[in-house]
Amino acid sequence: MEFSSKLLEKAVNEMAQLPGIGKRTALRLVLHLLRQPKEQALLLSEALKTVREEINFCKSCHNISDKTLCEICDNPMRNKSLICIVEDIRDVMAIESTGSFKGLYHVLGGKISPMDGIGPQDLNITTLIDKVKDGTVTELIFAMSPTMEGDTTNFYIYRQIQDYNIKTSTIARGIAAGNELEYADEITLGRSIIDRIPFEASLKS
Amino acid sequence: MEFSSKLLEKAVNEMAQLPGIGKRTALRLVLHLLRQPKEQALLLSEALKTVREEINFCKSCHNISDKTLCEICDNPMRNKSLICIVEDIRDVMAIESTGSFKGLYHVLGGKISPMDGIGPQDLNITTLIDKVKDGTVTELIFAMSPTMEGDTTNFYIYRQIQDYNIKTSTIARGIAAGNELEYADEITLGRSIIDRIPFEASLKS
Ligand SMILES: [Zn+2]
Ligand SMILES: [Zn+2]
Repeated sequence: MEFSSKLLEKAVNEMAQLPGIGKRTALRLVLHLLRQPKEQALLLSEALKTVREEINFCKSCHNISDKTLCEICDNPMRNKSLICIVEDIRDVMAIESTGSFKGLYHVLGGKISPMDGIGPQDLNITTLIDKVKDGTVTELIFAMSPTMEGDTTNFYIYRQIQDYNIKTSTIARGIAAGNELEYADEITLGRSIIDRIPFEASLKS
Repeated sequence: MEFSSKLLEKAVNEMAQLPGIGKRTALRLVLHLLRQPKEQALLLSEALKTVREEINFCKSCHNISDKTLCEICDNPMRNKSLICIVEDIRDVMAIESTGSFKGLYHVLGGKISPMDGIGPQDLNITTLIDKVKDGTVTELIFAMSPTMEGDTTNFYIYRQIQDYNIKTSTIARGIAAGNELEYADEITLGRSIIDRIPFEASLKS
């Protein structure tokens, strides 16, 4: 692709670094910004800068948060002895929108995937084990997407905590195997939390 | 969509203003940026700001350019008496990549579309007519996408210049009617320039 402007080329190339955005789409998006009032493009530029520079993660659950503790962890009405383990903050958003869950979350920040070079040490696992060790947790819900990597991650964590006397469960597999959790509809997802089954039982299926 | 962070919400909302980017896609893109090294996100933010603030348009052809005259207009090897009229700079890029065309361009910046409230006064038409009036142009190639709006725009311009003694042509309709020019393959597009036909002949088909 030959550009008539270095500024344009640079903006398109940076935009095309985003996942799923090819060069043609990137060009279309940048040209759109050039046709908008200047403030519009500057608002986007500023919001991306600010979110990257100032974003914080909850010290307890690793959810994205503007404060030290996220609103969920900081809410006295939530059940602190029940922790739902998820891959990503999108999963927190998806489960929260069902209104079915009143415990806390623990955001791993990914899943074990040797193919992508992601091991347990790259995920927020130590802080989870610590919560189990200090005795406040009575039940862990494994809510990773039911894919091979999700199952591997669940099992890795399960082995670390199986000697502690806590209940473990996985969300009910109303979600079709191999599907990403975040694309599940709210009813299925809400139901799958209520119908959760003991983790050991999920190993037999 | 409930966000756990105002910063995140703002970035997602701004990203979702882009055409074809829904809220879910915007969230996926912003979360990707949060996982990248800080410099990556700042490069994108900076490139978008700079392109919008400092972008220039060629004084002669309205192509995007970092200088007063774009490289094409400023190239002494190009034939200044032959002007190819296009809708958008993406069309300039598409035709340039064929290597078939050695004249200059004139970028209208859109097409006449009453449905979208775009009239001739919103396009770079006056500067085109001026070029015809001052006598340097001997041939105009109408290279708008062969859609209803493209045809309307071509015809509007044609009527303004038909009393001047210049040749007019349209690109050969090797491109299927109703298709967008920018998605044509290079061979078809290059061929359609070489096979251009007198504009009057195109009215009869
Ligand atoms: Zn938290
Ligand atoms: Zn130019």
